[in-house]
Amino acid sequence: MLSKSKIKLINSLKMGKYRRQHQLFVAEGTTNVLDFLHSGIETEALYATRNWLKTNQSFLNKIEITEVILKEMAKISALKNPSEVLAVFAIPEKNEADLNTMNDLVLMLDDIRDPGNLGTIIRTADWFGISHIICSENTVDTYNPKVVQASMGSLARVQVYYQNLKKTLQAKPDYLKVFGAVLKGNDMVELAKPNHGIILVGSEAHGISKELLPLIDIKITIPKQVSIDVPNSAESLNASIATAVICYEFRRK
Amino acid sequence: MLSKSKIKLINSLKMGKYRRQHQLFVAEGTTNVLDFLHSGIETEALYATRNWLKTNQSFLNKIEITEVILKEMAKISALKNPSEVLAVFAIPEKNEADLNTMNDLVLMLDDIRDPGNLGTIIRTADWFGISHIICSENTVDTYNPKVVQASMGSLARVQVYYQNLKKTLQAKPDYLKVFGAVLKGNDMVELAKPNHGIILVGSEAHGISKELLPLIDIKITIPKQVSIDVPNSAESLNASIATAVICYEFRRK
Repeated sequence: MLSKSKIKLINSLKMGKYRRQHQLFVAEGTTNVLDFLHSGIETEALYATRNWLKTNQSFLNKIEITEVILKEMAKISALKNPSEVLAVFAIPEKNEADLNTMNDLVLMLDDIRDPGNLGTIIRTADWFGISHIICSENTVDTYNPKVVQASMGSLARVQVYYQNLKKTLQAKPDYLKVFGAVLKGNDMVELAKPNHGIILVGSEAHGISKELLPLIDIKITIPKQVSIDVPNSAESLNASIATAVICYEFRRK
Repeated sequence: MLSKSKIKLINSLKMGKYRRQHQLFVAEGTTNVLDFLHSGIETEALYATRNWLKTNQSFLNKIEITEVILKEMAKISALKNPSEVLAVFAIPEKNEADLNTMNDLVLMLDDIRDPGNLGTIIRTADWFGISHIICSENTVDTYNPKVVQASMGSLARVQVYYQNLKKTLQAKPDYLKVFGAVLKGNDMVELAKPNHGIILVGSEAHGISKELLPLIDIKITIPKQVSIDVPNSAESLNASIATAVICYEFRRK
C-alpha cells in the first residue's frame, strides 16, 4: 500500500527544490533501477508490482520494498506509461572534479538545458567509455526525472559534476587540451585526436559562452555534407548529436 | 485578432486525425517557419507578433497574415514558451519513394516512435546531406508538432516517405546494399562504406523487426569503448544518436 505521505514525497522529487531538500531522487524502469542497485548507491525505497518482484528478487536484499499495483504506480510515476518498478535513491555526495587526477577524455557541458539531451549525453558517454562529465552550474540537474530516464541506467556509472567551468579550465593541467565544438572551427576529421583531453560542448541555443571561448585550445567542427538534392542544409546539429559524433571520432582509432 | 474557430482548428492539428482530415500542419519558430516559406510549400496562414513581422517582412509576399500578441500565441502554440511566429502549411502530396531512382545514401527507419528522435534524425540527415528518409508505416508522423520542432527547419528540405519497408526492400535495385544497425554486427569502422546504400535503423525498444532482418546485406555495429573507470557500460545507444554516428561514419571519407 502506498501511503498519502509517500505519494506526496515521491511526487515532490520531480522538482529540483525538493530533491535538494531531501537529497533524494527517483528512477523508474528495470534498466535504470537495476543499474543503480548494482552501483551500490544508497537505496531509500523501492516500489514494484508483484510480477516484477518475483522476477528480480535476487537483487533486492536489505531494501525497503513496497508492493504496488500498476494503478498505484500511476500516482507516483513521471512517465506516461508507468513501468513496473520505481525506486528512490539518495543523491550521492560529490566533490568537484579534479582534472589533475584525470588522464582520459572528459566531457564538459556549458549550459545544456534540455533534460533529454543531458540524459542522452550521459548514455552516450557511457557507451564510449567516458566516465566523467563536468557541467556548468546552469546545466539542467542530472537528477531531473527526464534526465534519469533518458540516461537509461548510465547515470549509475558515469560521474557527473557541477562546477564553475571557467575556474576549472583555468586550473587544468597542461597535458589536457580543450577541444571546443563550434560551427566554424577546424575540420575534426583532419585533426590529431589524443586519447586524453577535454571535449567542450555549448548550450543548445547559444553554443559555448563567451567567457570560455578564449580557454579553448583547438576549435573543432563536424564537417557538413551538402547533397545535390538539398541545396541548403541544417544550420547546426542537436547538442547531444554533436557530442556523440565528436566522442565517436575521438574514440574510433 | 484570432477567431475562436481559428484557435480550434490550429489546436486540432496537434492530433494526427485532424492533420489527415485537413491536410494541414503547424510549424513554430523563426527557423522552422522561414525554412518552410523558402521551400515553396503552400502556406495556409501565418500568425506573428508585430515585432516579428517588421523584421521578416521581405519573406511574406502573398501570405495570409494575422498579427497577434504573445498572449494570443499561447492559445495556439504547442510550446511551453511560444515563439513570435506560427504558421499553418499544407501537407505536400507525396508518392512512395522509388529506390530505383536513387544513387545516394538513403535512411530507412523501422518504427521510430519518439517524435524528438524522428525530428533529430531529420535534422541530422540534412546536415550530412542525406535527402531521403523512408519510414515504416508505424513510425511517428513527421508532421507531429514535436517532430517539426525537433527538425529545426530541416523537414522543409529532407523528403520523408511512409511505406511498407519489406516490400520496398524486396523491390530495391541490387547496387543499393542494405546496412542494418544491430547490437552484434560487423565493426562499422573496419567496413568498406560505399557512397550509396540504405542505412536501416530499428525502433527504440525492439531494434530492427524480424521480418526485415533477412533483407539486410551487411549488419553493422558502432564499436563500444569500455573505460577502466566504468566496468559495465550502456546496453545500447539512443536511436537518433546511433543514426547520426552511422551517417557520420559513412560520410566522413
